[in-house]
Amino acid sequence: MAAFDLDTIRHSSAHLMAQAIARLWPNEQVQFGVGPVIENGFYYDVEMDHKLTEEDLKAIEAEMKKIIKEKLPIERRVMEKEEAISFFKDQGQELKVELINSFDAGEEISCYQQGEFIDLCRGPHVDKTSDLPIAFKLLNVAGAYWRGDEKRQMLQRVYAACFKDKKQLKEHLHFIEEAKKRDHRKLGKELELFHFERVAPASPFFMPKGAMVYNQLVDFMRRVYREYGYDEVITPQVLDSDLWQTSGHYDHYKENMYFSNIDDREYAVKPMNCPCHMLMFAHYKYSYRDLPLRYADFGRLHRYEKAGAVAGLTRVRTFCQDDAHIFIEMDGIQAEIQKLMEMFFICYEHFGFKNIKVNLSTRPEKKAGDDATWDKAESALKQALEASGHEYSIKEGDGAFYGPKIDVEISDALNRYHQLGTIQLDFQLPERFNLKYTNKDGHESRPVVIHRALLGSLERFIGVYLEHVGGAFPFWLAPEQAVIVPVNNANHLEYAQKLYKELHDLSYRVRVDDRNESMGYKTRQIQKSKAPFMLVIGDKEMENDSVSIRSYGAKFATSISTSELKENFAELNKDLIPEALRKS
Amino acid sequence: MAAFDLDTIRHSSAHLMAQAIARLWPNEQVQFGVGPVIENGFYYDVEMDHKLTEEDLKAIEAEMKKIIKEKLPIERRVMEKEEAISFFKDQGQELKVELINSFDAGEEISCYQQGEFIDLCRGPHVDKTSDLPIAFKLLNVAGAYWRGDEKRQMLQRVYAACFKDKKQLKEHLHFIEEAKKRDHRKLGKELELFHFERVAPASPFFMPKGAMVYNQLVDFMRRVYREYGYDEVITPQVLDSDLWQTSGHYDHYKENMYFSNIDDREYAVKPMNCPCHMLMFAHYKYSYRDLPLRYADFGRLHRYEKAGAVAGLTRVRTFCQDDAHIFIEMDGIQAEIQKLMEMFFICYEHFGFKNIKVNLSTRPEKKAGDDATWDKAESALKQALEASGHEYSIKEGDGAFYGPKIDVEISDALNRYHQLGTIQLDFQLPERFNLKYTNKDGHESRPVVIHRALLGSLERFIGVYLEHVGGAFPFWLAPEQAVIVPVNNANHLEYAQKLYKELHDLSYRVRVDDRNESMGYKTRQIQKSKAPFMLVIGDKEMENDSVSIRSYGAKFATSISTSELKENFAELNKDLIPEALRKS
Repeated sequence: MAAFDLDTIRHSSAHLMAQAIARLWPNEQVQFGVGPVIENGFYYDVEMDHKLTEEDLKAIEAEMKKIIKEKLPIERRVMEKEEAISFFKDQGQELKVELINSFDAGEEISCYQQGEFIDLCRGPHVDKTSDLPIAFKLLNVAGAYWRGDEKRQMLQRVYAACFKDKKQLKEHLHFIEEAKKRDHRKLGKELELFHFERVAPASPFFMPKGAMVYNQLVDFMRRVYREYGYDEVITPQVLDSDLWQTSGHYDHYKENMYFSNIDDREYAVKPMNCPCHMLMFAHYKYSYRDLPLRYADFGRLHRYEKAGAVAGLTRVRTFCQDDAHIFIEMDGIQAEIQKLMEMFFICYEHFGFKNIKVNLSTRPEKKAGDDATWDKAESALKQALEASGHEYSIKEGDGAFYGPKIDVEISDALNRYHQLGTIQLDFQLPERFNLKYTNKDGHESRPVVIHRALLGSLERFIGVYLEHVGGAFPFWLAPEQAVIVPVNNANHLEYAQKLYKELHDLSYRVRVDDRNESMGYKTRQIQKSKAPFMLVIGDKEMENDSVSIRSYGAKFATSISTSELKENFAELNKDLIPEALRKS
Repeated sequence: MAAFDLDTIRHSSAHLMAQAIARLWPNEQVQFGVGPVIENGFYYDVEMDHKLTEEDLKAIEAEMKKIIKEKLPIERRVMEKEEAISFFKDQGQELKVELINSFDAGEEISCYQQGEFIDLCRGPHVDKTSDLPIAFKLLNVAGAYWRGDEKRQMLQRVYAACFKDKKQLKEHLHFIEEAKKRDHRKLGKELELFHFERVAPASPFFMPKGAMVYNQLVDFMRRVYREYGYDEVITPQVLDSDLWQTSGHYDHYKENMYFSNIDDREYAVKPMNCPCHMLMFAHYKYSYRDLPLRYADFGRLHRYEKAGAVAGLTRVRTFCQDDAHIFIEMDGIQAEIQKLMEMFFICYEHFGFKNIKVNLSTRPEKKAGDDATWDKAESALKQALEASGHEYSIKEGDGAFYGPKIDVEISDALNRYHQLGTIQLDFQLPERFNLKYTNKDGHESRPVVIHRALLGSLERFIGVYLEHVGGAFPFWLAPEQAVIVPVNNANHLEYAQKLYKELHDLSYRVRVDDRNESMGYKTRQIQKSKAPFMLVIGDKEMENDSVSIRSYGAKFATSISTSELKENFAELNKDLIPEALRKS
């Protein structure tokens, strides 16, 4: 077999699938849309009356294998535009005709033919169907508007995974399976963390356990802030459009904002905290001695997203960020960025994210501010990154028009990268709000603003982190840290309740499961809830002042004294703050 | 002097003031509006070109005293409506003419005359000007629209305090002085706790110190909730009008809500959390074993208030409450209310509120639900209040149409009562949301809902509490608990910073004041900031490992060892939780 590249294999496999579909439904005029290569495979959009089922996908796969065995040669044909139009018209392929019509006049049009099947395509392709490895799997069918236009007809999009060999395919299918198990929407429901309601699209309702995790994350960031000199502020959510004019959001972000009229004026629900912090800085007189000034804000934000774009917790219409704005002198940037990188890495590693990528985005073509300022800022960022000792990639020209930025991605347990942190220099907002401080020489200077978030949206972080840990939160973050189970209520409940009170008073989150259910049932339920520990109390435990402890996921329980239990819990609870920031 | 009642004295004094004004500006056609008795005195609305100044108020007071000395008899005259109209028209008193025109035809119209001054008035009055005690003080002038209508002209409203004798007046003026000093708007600015901006009317911006107090209050309630079995939830803020239709807010509360259109549907920013909690309860299946279920929510609320009605933190357009909804069986109400009363009293007393009034409001004429249910609910509330051992007043018929309620008022350091807590039974929302749980017999039952808030709006509570403590927060709540001052930076700064680190690591909120300013200046500044403690470090303190400590408001400092200091701080910090709820 010649060494075709993966994209070619995937693309040819898409044609293969289309051919199989055409063969299996000869009496339907199946219309073919587009069939591009995507990450991990390909899809093809088809229009047909029959609604494809899981069974159909299996039949299509079988037919594809059959065509491979037929060793059909794949041949390229070139046509003039008019010829191509009339050819596909004859074939009844109206979607293809529409595509060809959208091409420039005089453009060379190529088609590929294998057996009876011919498709419009730029290529390249493998030489014959038997060049294709049987390393594909048809995954599912989803609806997709023709040309992405919701006013056009809905086609059936058939997704397939496709690799160079069976081993890679198998690995990928395992990954998909694991990702499905860890899907945060599924876990959110199972663990009673959050859910959605029709009356509030893309706006999660956090049930007690979810709210506990949420608040623990906020508290975690507050403890970190305390060590890095951040001051939390609380700012309004509904603000006059005048403010959004000043900040520039009105011109650049209006479609994503919610508006309301109050006393005949237009107000908007805030999509970002920054303008509020600019007002606060402007309200007082500051000198260089007060800088850097760091305002942190967990204020709730609202950003409109199209109904089709929202998904679980990872893309919502309302969320809070661990947002902060740092007001700083130009000369202070490098030291501050170094501090930020330290803080980011300490926290990400605390959450168990092992692979961390740092990207530096530099000045774009259309930019505000002069080159000298950009030079200074970019070089400060580079020097800070180098001094931090972390590798980083440069994304040339990818900065915002108002300043260069650093973004940080982490990879989760399934090796998927997620951007969490962002550090954004801003020369524009201080101008727009005419911010000033008194410098060392007693003159007025303009501060630079750094926008930064470490976890980013807390909602999204919870989604990402839930999938990373598969729903099994570490002790310090678990909504329920331990469940105490008396072997039978008659003999052991009192002792269980005494232990409960002791642990509760030590500020642990524990519960007694005193339901009249079997031990087996309770054990399964507690394992399902992914509580870090199950503590069983029977006769022996009462006698020895001990508990039978079983960690989440462990096959067996072990016996330890209650004093040892408390020591262990205290040790685990140290993780409330990252090791690097702990007091001696 | 005959014994006239206070209202008569105040009313006659209002006429006295009007006469004095008329005398002092003989060349202006001063128009008199209304001059009613109010709490602590009276006011009179006048229309004149001259804008009254503080100096004028003194001159008017002097003239009033002069008229008293003139011993003018005060005589009642009765007129027919037509006669009165023509009389006041002749006097050029157009506002009085308008008032008379609004009276019913045939109504008897009385006027009172003293010397050259005659005023439309129902009376009664004292017999002669010399019957009036010289126990009044003109306080200030404020603008007021004629007949409260913003489309009519603006009059000058002259406010006066007025009592039976000079002693009472003096006491009241002292109270006003004290209240001014404690005005939370003034303190909020001075202590850099919060401020307002034009772009967000009635929506406070909490600066770092204010946000610290705010978050400490939330954390305080969380600690209390932990002991009383509350579960915090986090709910969306922007919800479809469908929901507000279901809850009834759309029919009864619409004018106070902000609306926004999203994807061609109408949404409202939530003014209350209850509908979200109803949805949450309905989302899961609960049994009697799960009840009472207590959802707490610090969600941000938005309620439109007219621009004229808002004031400081006490009446804002956006706030958070220590809000909770309890889902409970009818039979559980009494026990739960007892628990609530315990919790309320423990917390209020912890904040130093000594006088606590409890009111029970019973069924109104227009009510939902049958009498049997109301009987049961009211008697449960009464029995709970009696079992709690607190006195309470009954407000007959003052309950909401959907259930009886208890409200709790506290008196502050100036003996002003403020309603903080409210406990509201609700039979309606469970109906509207068709809430159900499985009762002991395995059948479906409808739960009762209790709406409750202890601090109420956190914003308003901060306003009330700031005035109660005059800005001097107790140690556990103070945004800055201690300021460390080295006598001179050259010798003592290092030691001061070491002490700072120790206290910071023990989680206290401290700061080093290392500015190059005199000790006297720093002392004044720290006293002004009302930080509980100032800790001075000089040679002696460095030698002895001690600090010179001065409490807020104390005239002198005393010397204690740093270990004693830490013990004292730890003792004070126990107030993070009320004594009654502390662990042994």
